[in-house]
Amino acid sequence: MEKLELLYEGKAKKVYKTTEAGQYWVEYKDDATAFNGEKRGTILGKGELNNQITGIFFELLADKGIENHYLRQLSKNEQLVQAVKILPIEVVVRNIAAGTLAKRLGLAEGTELLHPVVEFYYKDDSLGDPLINESHIAVLGLATKEQLEEMQEISLKVNEILLGYLKEKEIILVDFKLEFGVTSDGKLILADEISPDTCRFWDLTTKEKLDKDRFRRDLGKVEDAYQEIYRRLGGV
Amino acid sequence: MEKLELLYEGKAKKVYKTTEAGQYWVEYKDDATAFNGEKRGTILGKGELNNQITGIFFELLADKGIENHYLRQLSKNEQLVQAVKILPIEVVVRNIAAGTLAKRLGLAEGTELLHPVVEFYYKDDSLGDPLINESHIAVLGLATKEQLEEMQEISLKVNEILLGYLKEKEIILVDFKLEFGVTSDGKLILADEISPDTCRFWDLTTKEKLDKDRFRRDLGKVEDAYQEIYRRLGGV
Repeated sequence: MEKLELLYEGKAKKVYKTTEAGQYWVEYKDDATAFNGEKRGTILGKGELNNQITGIFFELLADKGIENHYLRQLSKNEQLVQAVKILPIEVVVRNIAAGTLAKRLGLAEGTELLHPVVEFYYKDDSLGDPLINESHIAVLGLATKEQLEEMQEISLKVNEILLGYLKEKEIILVDFKLEFGVTSDGKLILADEISPDTCRFWDLTTKEKLDKDRFRRDLGKVEDAYQEIYRRLGGV
Repeated sequence: MEKLELLYEGKAKKVYKTTEAGQYWVEYKDDATAFNGEKRGTILGKGELNNQITGIFFELLADKGIENHYLRQLSKNEQLVQAVKILPIEVVVRNIAAGTLAKRLGLAEGTELLHPVVEFYYKDDSLGDPLINESHIAVLGLATKEQLEEMQEISLKVNEILLGYLKEKEIILVDFKLEFGVTSDGKLILADEISPDTCRFWDLTTKEKLDKDRFRRDLGKVEDAYQEIYRRLGGV
């Protein structure tokens, strides 16, 4: 199998076609952006760490019955995935108030939420990825009602699985973002990545942030945080 | 029946207790605000017009089976209503893209929506009345799941009734905001007001704005627009 032309370049990844129909080659980059691209930088080693962390999470989820696009590692910062058409919706699940939720609802960061909060965001940089609801999604035709319900159900299952798994690693799963794709035969599956770029991870005891908030908020030791997550998940 | 102490003063109304248990005295004001209070002004005659327009709409809705808090007119700018505890949620129903929806979804103002859009906003000035979803409402305990479903159902019925009624008056109902309250015996009913302050009304033919957008956007002839709505609804 060989890498063919670049299909898409995002903020953190490049996706290439391959000689294998239905399989994409994903390269994870060290580039970091925040606040809808207003803040830009580089996190050394992030591409390799997020590629491997994502692989660990997606293998775990597949084991637990959550079908996803991940196939296998290709190199330290590259992975092979099933080709899907990504839906332009970001699903965010939150267990603890932080970031935009804390701001939106006027809750102190760290407030435990009675139930997990599920939010949909419209993946559109020019609009600043706004929060949207079911009726916005219907009117824009971004997903069917059935797809939306399935995304919500899968996201809550992923939350349950990751919460328990991470607690054993002494990590609090504060919140995370998922993306979904549709395969060539119309099946909705989990896609994109699960990493310190797309999750908030806090140390169980010290509540130290071990995720992209260190970059967003200039907290320093950004590389160390990503490395620490990888280490706790069993990486070196 | 007499007016007793002031219970609440909002941007556009004052609410008083009365000697009658379970009944409130509402005084509509000429004060106008927009953009979460950043813009302030006076629309001469607005208090009288909105009081009477709200009365017409609430009588129509009661006739059509939509229970609401309106009882009767007390003076040109005052009305008697059933006492309710207002839920801190604004329900917005939209038929045509305008205002924050046009901005949020990147739609041109005037775009017809395939289905009515229903949105919930958290009534909290200090947070800027943010858009919220069902899981935010659950976590904040703002309403029960049953209340939320009932609010959504009633709001869509109100939309159907007002759309047809206003079309006969050559008015397009672009969007509107509703508030709901709970009576002392726990019943959820429609409350607050329905007026050019809380709806977008466009002339059917010219698409001229006949609502508070004339104030928000400094379009002039603000008083005339409110007067014209009252006239078309059968007022003088």
